[in-house]
Amino acid sequence: MHKGRLEAFSDGVIAIIITIMVLELRVPHGDTWSDLLPLVPVFISYVLSFIYLGIYWNNHHHMLQRAHQVNGAVLWANLHLLFWLSLTPFVTAWMGENHFAPQPVLLYGIDLLMCAIAYGILAAILTRVEGKDSDFARALGSGVKETASGIAYFVAVAVALFAPWVSLAIYFGVALVWLIPDRRFERVVQ
Amino acid sequence: MHKGRLEAFSDGVIAIIITIMVLELRVPHGDTWSDLLPLVPVFISYVLSFIYLGIYWNNHHHMLQRAHQVNGAVLWANLHLLFWLSLTPFVTAWMGENHFAPQPVLLYGIDLLMCAIAYGILAAILTRVEGKDSDFARALGSGVKETASGIAYFVAVAVALFAPWVSLAIYFGVALVWLIPDRRFERVVQ
Amino acid sequence: MHKGRLEAFSDGVIAIIITIMVLELRVPHGDTWSDLLPLVPVFISYVLSFIYLGIYWNNHHHMLQRAHQVNGAVLWANLHLLFWLSLTPFVTAWMGENHFAPQPVLLYGIDLLMCAIAYGILAAILTRVEGKDSDFARALGSGVKETASGIAYFVAVAVALFAPWVSLAIYFGVALVWLIPDRRFERVVQ
Amino acid sequence: MHKGRLEAFSDGVIAIIITIMVLELRVPHGDTWSDLLPLVPVFISYVLSFIYLGIYWNNHHHMLQRAHQVNGAVLWANLHLLFWLSLTPFVTAWMGENHFAPQPVLLYGIDLLMCAIAYGILAAILTRVEGKDSDFARALGSGVKETASGIAYFVAVAVALFAPWVSLAIYFGVALVWLIPDRRFERVVQ
Repeated sequence: MHKGRLEAFSDGVIAIIITIMVLELRVPHGDTWSDLLPLVPVFISYVLSFIYLGIYWNNHHHMLQRAHQVNGAVLWANLHLLFWLSLTPFVTAWMGENHFAPQPVLLYGIDLLMCAIAYGILAAILTRVEGKDSDFARALGSGVKETASGIAYFVAVAVALFAPWVSLAIYFGVALVWLIPDRRFERVVQ
Repeated sequence: MHKGRLEAFSDGVIAIIITIMVLELRVPHGDTWSDLLPLVPVFISYVLSFIYLGIYWNNHHHMLQRAHQVNGAVLWANLHLLFWLSLTPFVTAWMGENHFAPQPVLLYGIDLLMCAIAYGILAAILTRVEGKDSDFARALGSGVKETASGIAYFVAVAVALFAPWVSLAIYFGVALVWLIPDRRFERVVQ
Repeated sequence: MHKGRLEAFSDGVIAIIITIMVLELRVPHGDTWSDLLPLVPVFISYVLSFIYLGIYWNNHHHMLQRAHQVNGAVLWANLHLLFWLSLTPFVTAWMGENHFAPQPVLLYGIDLLMCAIAYGILAAILTRVEGKDSDFARALGSGVKETASGIAYFVAVAVALFAPWVSLAIYFGVALVWLIPDRRFERVVQ
Repeated sequence: MHKGRLEAFSDGVIAIIITIMVLELRVPHGDTWSDLLPLVPVFISYVLSFIYLGIYWNNHHHMLQRAHQVNGAVLWANLHLLFWLSLTPFVTAWMGENHFAPQPVLLYGIDLLMCAIAYGILAAILTRVEGKDSDFARALGSGVKETASGIAYFVAVAVALFAPWVSLAIYFGVALVWLIPDRRFERVVQ
């Protein structure tokens, strides 16, 4: 089985998710800046989710590039990841339109957490296919950054009902950590 | 004629179908869990259709991979399959928004049945192109699983008006059978 | 300049057009067959446009396959074709939702006509690039079928305000002629 | 790292953006020409944005074709460009639905300006990766046309609140300059 079509399909789905999110930025009826004001939180949500989908596409790209073979389990683990990613437009819009109210912020975090878990499952299955001593496994590394992100999402979900702004800060913080490729960060954590 | 562009086009259409379905998960106006409650059946429909589209992409992927040549008839048989798949977002949303009422559940089953028939036609045309003694025909096998699924959809459609929950159980049951690759199952049925 | 990315981009756009049309099949609020009745003309429009987009993808596929090089003029002639194709969801929905009223039927025909003209321009530019004595020009042939289709669309547009059903019959008739690959038809016309 | 998947992902996103814009052409309820009249400015906006996205796809295609390697910075600079392009459907619809009112025209210009800046950043990063004396840098040239376009957008943004029609003329004018490949234009400016 070739991995090319798996990559192409994943690229297609992520490209569509990242683009249709903009349809939730509903065009206001008025023609002044004040008519755009209620859209500001929706826009901030959009930026956050755009960055996250970019990170997932980026990491997915790198991980698949080092894989040599895919089987049925990989296909389904990949679809499982795409499923949680596909819910991003919904949780993004719900959070943005409700101006970062506690429960929508919590649901957004649950989706991030599920995406992270699904990504971990995909990485684990690919590692089993490639072998524990393979180049793939070595390149994947210890997964410290991934585990730390998962814990951060978990904390964000836990505090969302009491301090949604803390959760939001965690979402943006984790995104920044992935955006800025900083090898020292990993060393410090280790 | 090369099959590459046929695969790419099919991947694109299936990727778009699987993703725009999420647009039917309309963002509620309120910001509490109770506002999400009416969406639960829509979400369950979404999960079911996501799995089915994943199965079709997966099987389409495998079938085309073994094919060597495509002609005009294959192109149109493929578009015919994509047509019924493209109606999935509509029947999914109608079924979900009406909380699995009998007639929407029946229509969903008709779409599943038409997809299965269209897939069978595509397989038959590819077999004629490749030859009855080809590797393609041998790899395709006897089609027991496909025929059994078609019969199951037919039964589900027949009972939908009286017992929609039975139909729904059949839809999920068949999806599970395809999700879990179990060679023994085929042997038992044979 | 390679034609691969031109094909991939065109495939992507046509795949998206053919798929987002289904979003115009608005899910009705009721859960009975009678609630679906008003959607029947929208569905018929959808089927017609699905076939036309399939024909364009098919023909585009064949034409580009025989081309060897693309330049800036080809890129823009191709985008010009994609522009008119991209209006299909709009004219399809307007025609379907108004139950084939004269003016929407006329506009649908204008879009078909513009697509045909844009396709002809693309073919002419590719012929100029490849050369009049090239294999490409020979494979393209005399364009009898294309010219006849264009004339048919023109007639359909001319009579739409008086006899929209005649126009609609022409739209379906031309689609059938392209669907059924009949070499004798071309000979008879010649 | 291969550039193939970067190109494919960018093609996918641009193809989706250029196509979902048509969803903002809301189908009117009436079935006469007068019902279409309010859509004329939305349609003009659509044409303008379709051309701009075509130009970006075209230029992106050419620039990436000459690049040999991509790294993390290129991936993110590319996503940054796609982000501003992805806002096109929103600013297009806001401008069209408000019949070219000053503030929507200004916002449209800001989006064009940000796209141009993002494209410039991508070009700069690719130049650094390839080297200042590379074929890539030579092919890219002095960027006179790009800089002139950026200045034009800036002027359009500055005058939009007082003379939105001047801004609009600039948007169309710059698009035409890019549509018509005129080598003498560059020489004259130099």
